[in-house]
Amino acid sequence: MPQLIPKVKGTRDFYPEDWAYQKWLCEKFIGVGNLFGYREYESTILEYMALYLGKSSEEIVTQQTFTLSDRDDKQLVMRPELTPTLARMVAQKEGELTFPIRWQSYGRFFRYERPQRGRGRSFFQWNIDALGSDSYLADAEIITIACTLFKHLDLSTQHATIRVNDRQGLENLIAKELALPPENIRPVLGAIDRIDKMPEEKFRIHLADDLDLSTDQIDTLYEILQTADLTFSPWLQRIFEQLDKNGVIEFVKLDLKIVRGFDYYTRTVFEAWAKTSLRRALFGGGRYDNLTRQVGGKRQVPGVGFAVGDMAITELLKEIDIYPQLETPGARVFVTIFSEDLLTQSSSFAEKLRQEGIATELHLIPGQRLDRQFKYADRQNIPFAAVIGPDEASANTVVLKDLKARAQQIFSQNDLCAIKTTLKNGITQA
Amino acid sequence: MPQLIPKVKGTRDFYPEDWAYQKWLCEKFIGVGNLFGYREYESTILEYMALYLGKSSEEIVTQQTFTLSDRDDKQLVMRPELTPTLARMVAQKEGELTFPIRWQSYGRFFRYERPQRGRGRSFFQWNIDALGSDSYLADAEIITIACTLFKHLDLSTQHATIRVNDRQGLENLIAKELALPPENIRPVLGAIDRIDKMPEEKFRIHLADDLDLSTDQIDTLYEILQTADLTFSPWLQRIFEQLDKNGVIEFVKLDLKIVRGFDYYTRTVFEAWAKTSLRRALFGGGRYDNLTRQVGGKRQVPGVGFAVGDMAITELLKEIDIYPQLETPGARVFVTIFSEDLLTQSSSFAEKLRQEGIATELHLIPGQRLDRQFKYADRQNIPFAAVIGPDEASANTVVLKDLKARAQQIFSQNDLCAIKTTLKNGITQA
Repeated sequence: MPQLIPKVKGTRDFYPEDWAYQKWLCEKFIGVGNLFGYREYESTILEYMALYLGKSSEEIVTQQTFTLSDRDDKQLVMRPELTPTLARMVAQKEGELTFPIRWQSYGRFFRYERPQRGRGRSFFQWNIDALGSDSYLADAEIITIACTLFKHLDLSTQHATIRVNDRQGLENLIAKELALPPENIRPVLGAIDRIDKMPEEKFRIHLADDLDLSTDQIDTLYEILQTADLTFSPWLQRIFEQLDKNGVIEFVKLDLKIVRGFDYYTRTVFEAWAKTSLRRALFGGGRYDNLTRQVGGKRQVPGVGFAVGDMAITELLKEIDIYPQLETPGARVFVTIFSEDLLTQSSSFAEKLRQEGIATELHLIPGQRLDRQFKYADRQNIPFAAVIGPDEASANTVVLKDLKARAQQIFSQNDLCAIKTTLKNGITQA
Repeated sequence: MPQLIPKVKGTRDFYPEDWAYQKWLCEKFIGVGNLFGYREYESTILEYMALYLGKSSEEIVTQQTFTLSDRDDKQLVMRPELTPTLARMVAQKEGELTFPIRWQSYGRFFRYERPQRGRGRSFFQWNIDALGSDSYLADAEIITIACTLFKHLDLSTQHATIRVNDRQGLENLIAKELALPPENIRPVLGAIDRIDKMPEEKFRIHLADDLDLSTDQIDTLYEILQTADLTFSPWLQRIFEQLDKNGVIEFVKLDLKIVRGFDYYTRTVFEAWAKTSLRRALFGGGRYDNLTRQVGGKRQVPGVGFAVGDMAITELLKEIDIYPQLETPGARVFVTIFSEDLLTQSSSFAEKLRQEGIATELHLIPGQRLDRQFKYADRQNIPFAAVIGPDEASANTVVLKDLKARAQQIFSQNDLCAIKTTLKNGITQA
């Protein structure tokens, strides 16, 4: 006998109860975006490798993509993220679109990572971006949206925080205080992106050995990264003022260690972090002012946005016990088959209910005993069962059973108005 | 300057207006499934090649899959269809599930086909299946659902038809009338699947040369395929009777030329065809009674279902001019910025509206002239604009403009009840 063919490692199946949660989460995301006027779009899942090279995160592009070749031997990639695709789509219609645009998208993404808690090789991600505004107002709006998402998910400042930085401000500070030439600054930023992944001693050795920094320079860098004061960045000052007006400042703090590993970010960068024992980045985003030109657009279209994967946020909801208990939406009524000679009565009644817009299952196993049919309906969480036996058939009536309340009531099959009301409100115990 | 990086051939981007249609179509599908009590599920997009080999359509598996290798050198496939995945998921939980189950799914699929009208390399597909019933009632329900989909899409018997066959009945007929040994029957079925793709003369030569059929056998086969009478299949007779009771028989006809190219079908098979100049299969399905065992399950779980891609049905809706005109759901109100010193007033008002659940855009370009802001809102199809100038700011009021009706009205910023009513019903010309 053949072995059961397994699912691919690091991917997920979604049985109805799992999918009910995924839909709930998707609706939370899209609902928040709608509140701010963001319109939904989607894209292809396959892109040419060229779209990502030199723009996205080097680690993701070189080590974590699922790649394949098309028949012209061009290298294709299963999209690991959406921002380069968004830039391509905007560049394609840069002459037609009315800027600024506010767009959001929810879809599937792929990264060849080591599967672990909160990470998988196939995941869903919500992307939300404003393009065409170089004002700090756009950055403030995007961060406000991230905080609004927290609120809509019942996450408080106890559970999550948003760490914000100005990458350009940080670069200026490093150039000035460490007296580094421009070409040496990006490698330092790259190192900062890994600072939380190693102990201080090891990190200092890395800076000295690999980046040729002196002990003084390293001390200065540590001082810079402790900065708790916004004066180094008038840009962030305005953003923080606006976040205060928007009533979300309590979620936000300055953190100069946040640089994001994506090459396309130019200014504001931020990461949401769990404050629970999960202690990991939940999602991140930032401003990318040159990306549409980097993918070949003629026009510079500044953008700012962020992307939230489904897996880390789900881990957090589970950890703090606010993962929702959801029912899988099934039928409202289960129409039994009393006996095969009465099948026509039952199937016609089921069809009549559907024509009224009532979600209705007709039993699919003729000849099964009635008590087993009720048991099946109950297991499927269908709240009502309908029975048409010989008496009901000749009187053109139907017995409705409320399976939870264990109560029943008889109706004329034509009295759809009363039947609908009962299916909505339930039957009170006789 | 770099060239614009193109999208991959045969794939699609969905700008907001395109995506609004895709969502509409998805909701039509899922709505029909819900009416019959089918619950939504989803799966991984990557599967092992072994899941499809010898079960699915040979043409699809060997010539039309996007394949890639994982790092253990196992061959992965971007799913070309869902039924084998469904069988795998059911087999994985065969001990836990309460049968029969009614499941539906809407997701993305990939086939390396030559892109043409109504076909692409990346498409969406709705799958709907009932598993665990070997009764003809399940087949009748599935075909009724297909007809209900037509009705919900405003397609009549003028536009589309469902051609139904009993593959097992046809095999028996061929075995008996052509006096063929069992092992020679499947190749004849394979040939029938291609009958519409070549002229009769060529097809007769194919049957004679490649399948060793005599002229008499070929004549008999042609007679069999003309059968217009259900007596050869008591199974189909019961299904057709039930379809008549369900009020959908006018969409359905018998057609012994329908065999479907998927190896897993065992009995009922059907295809929906456009009757317009499109003249092609819109979708297909059938009964597969052994698939869960073929993927390694221990238990035989009979199933029946069908799958509808988005592209062919969209071509049909366009051809007969019932493709819907949809608005992309954006903000209800656009809050202008009168001047930078009044920004706080505007942003606070925008936030207040959002807290009432009203989709609200705040302008993102401080300093832009008011008439250009109105023009922007109008182009984005946002029905209302809000203005807080110096007078309004000091009086704590706001001017609401109905951009379509070209009318306006002044409100207290705190009178959210009146504002909400106006945003719902519009402003009548003063």
